[in-house]
Amino acid sequence: MSASEDQVDIKDDLTDAFGSLGGTSGSSGGGGSGGSGYYTGTGVGGGATGVGAIGQLANGYGSSYHSYTASMVTDRHAAEYNMRHKNRGLALIFNHENFDVPTLKSRAGTNVDCENLARVLKQLDFDVKIFKDCSFHKLKQHIEWASQQDHKDNDCILVAVLSHGELGYIYAKDVQYKLDQIWSYFTPQHCPTLAGKPKLFFIQACQGDRLDPGVMMRRTTRTETDGESSMSYKIPLHADFLIAYSTIPGYYSWRNTTRGSWFMQSLCAELAANGKRLDMLTLLTFVCQRVAVDFESCTPDNPEMHQQKQIPCITTMLTRILRFAEKTALR
Amino acid sequence: MSASEDQVDIKDDLTDAFGSLGGTSGSSGGGGSGGSGYYTGTGVGGGATGVGAIGQLANGYGSSYHSYTASMVTDRHAAEYNMRHKNRGLALIFNHENFDVPTLKSRAGTNVDCENLARVLKQLDFDVKIFKDCSFHKLKQHIEWASQQDHKDNDCILVAVLSHGELGYIYAKDVQYKLDQIWSYFTPQHCPTLAGKPKLFFIQACQGDRLDPGVMMRRTTRTETDGESSMSYKIPLHADFLIAYSTIPGYYSWRNTTRGSWFMQSLCAELAANGKRLDMLTLLTFVCQRVAVDFESCTPDNPEMHQQKQIPCITTMLTRILRFAEKTALR
Repeated sequence: MSASEDQVDIKDDLTDAFGSLGGTSGSSGGGGSGGSGYYTGTGVGGGATGVGAIGQLANGYGSSYHSYTASMVTDRHAAEYNMRHKNRGLALIFNHENFDVPTLKSRAGTNVDCENLARVLKQLDFDVKIFKDCSFHKLKQHIEWASQQDHKDNDCILVAVLSHGELGYIYAKDVQYKLDQIWSYFTPQHCPTLAGKPKLFFIQACQGDRLDPGVMMRRTTRTETDGESSMSYKIPLHADFLIAYSTIPGYYSWRNTTRGSWFMQSLCAELAANGKRLDMLTLLTFVCQRVAVDFESCTPDNPEMHQQKQIPCITTMLTRILRFAEKTALR
Repeated sequence: MSASEDQVDIKDDLTDAFGSLGGTSGSSGGGGSGGSGYYTGTGVGGGATGVGAIGQLANGYGSSYHSYTASMVTDRHAAEYNMRHKNRGLALIFNHENFDVPTLKSRAGTNVDCENLARVLKQLDFDVKIFKDCSFHKLKQHIEWASQQDHKDNDCILVAVLSHGELGYIYAKDVQYKLDQIWSYFTPQHCPTLAGKPKLFFIQACQGDRLDPGVMMRRTTRTETDGESSMSYKIPLHADFLIAYSTIPGYYSWRNTTRGSWFMQSLCAELAANGKRLDMLTLLTFVCQRVAVDFESCTPDNPEMHQQKQIPCITTMLTRILRFAEKTALR
């Protein structure tokens, strides 16, 4: 993979927007913008109007003239993320069982999810912190605290939310909020010591009230199975995020009251079985497979909800392969 | 990966929705629903209100009581998709250069994208069909035609759209439309011969007018780099989709007027270099890396747009590893 020379002989860089820029014909341009120190403002949020799995990726800053710098943690074209820092990093679990909102029922089974997830994340060397039934104010305080820590010696960060949800929203104990109100704290201008490192978000929550009845796969035929790196470089502020949602936009997310949610059961099983062996996207592909083929709702008293299916929705802006290599072996 | 026994000893399956179901306590349930033949209705679309990379995954059917069946193409827990059918499958490229909408400029460079993409997809054994400057009516006709074909002997389907866009919308020659108006034609109830097979969508278009100024990664320390299968089973209707968007929701997508868009340049380079070697998600991770680290806008006459960055946004509901194995070697 060789570096583009667009900076040198470029004719026109246009955008594919409605009413895009006219022909600005730059013929040369510098590759590096000067650093002006870290921007550590925390006034994140506001202005977010998008919905869906990740919504509109809005940030609090108004101008694009800022120039941000951060410490290089991986060579420019490294295939894998550097997962050999001293620590794996923080894992925050926001576990919501009870709500102040009268229409929201208690989420029986969520403590099973939470305990399972905490256990497998500890096995993967995360510094796990559990927050139970937080109000949005408290939740934001914890997120803000995490974003203000020094992650210099950490591989990555992980945030998991187990709660009720609607299309575009997740519920805290008291109010609903948009997911970008959490993760926008961790973009490089707000959290420079996580720049270039994986920022992982796992969300167990509904994204609507639609049902997926599924399709029955019947065997009708024989099936087969198949077996420049030292220079500074600039990365987009929104690179290196991964958001794994338990379900697709608009749809229900299922939870078993004794075993926990289908998604968290599957995620924990995969992390426990293959967490140190497979890369994250392959692992999440198998999480999708587990949820898709191994689960089906069972509510015979409610035929409309009975025998329904679910598929998780993984959105990745990762730029390298992510694998949780054994930590102890590295010391 | 062993099958769940939720059907047998399940206590409660609830959903994590706002105002979710009360305690329906099913204690047993059958694993399989009877097949009632293919549903081949084509009245797709309507009712879609979501925005973002994939929007709300809406389908035209109103009830969830339908029961769909399709032919099993892969064993239930196979790690990889079956890519050993007779044909790779259709690849439709919708290439938009000129528009009837007065505010939309011609997309200089899109023909370079289109030719590059067609070439690499042919190398990967796709049956490539190019459609230039279609009206939405024409585009839908082509999509509908494709969804009505018999894909029995095909590995997968691929649809690429190169056009202008806004948050939640893509432009045809005459009007804007939502992406789900394309891909909803390929869910199993509408296109049963693609059930259980990868359905791949590559979108080069803006998703808004926000700019990503990026962050400069500076070397400050030494960096390191790291080196039950025969039974019928049910899958969600929305499994096995992959939607690769050139940019994140709310943001610009950049195009060089002579070399083509950053995303398509990167996608074609990766497909050409590693298309038969790497799995799709690893390959797309490296596409993200190329776009993120190798490109930066160069519009010195327009300082606000100058030196901006871009990160693609990959949303996957794939349930198995996807690799374009050499076709000729299989015959």
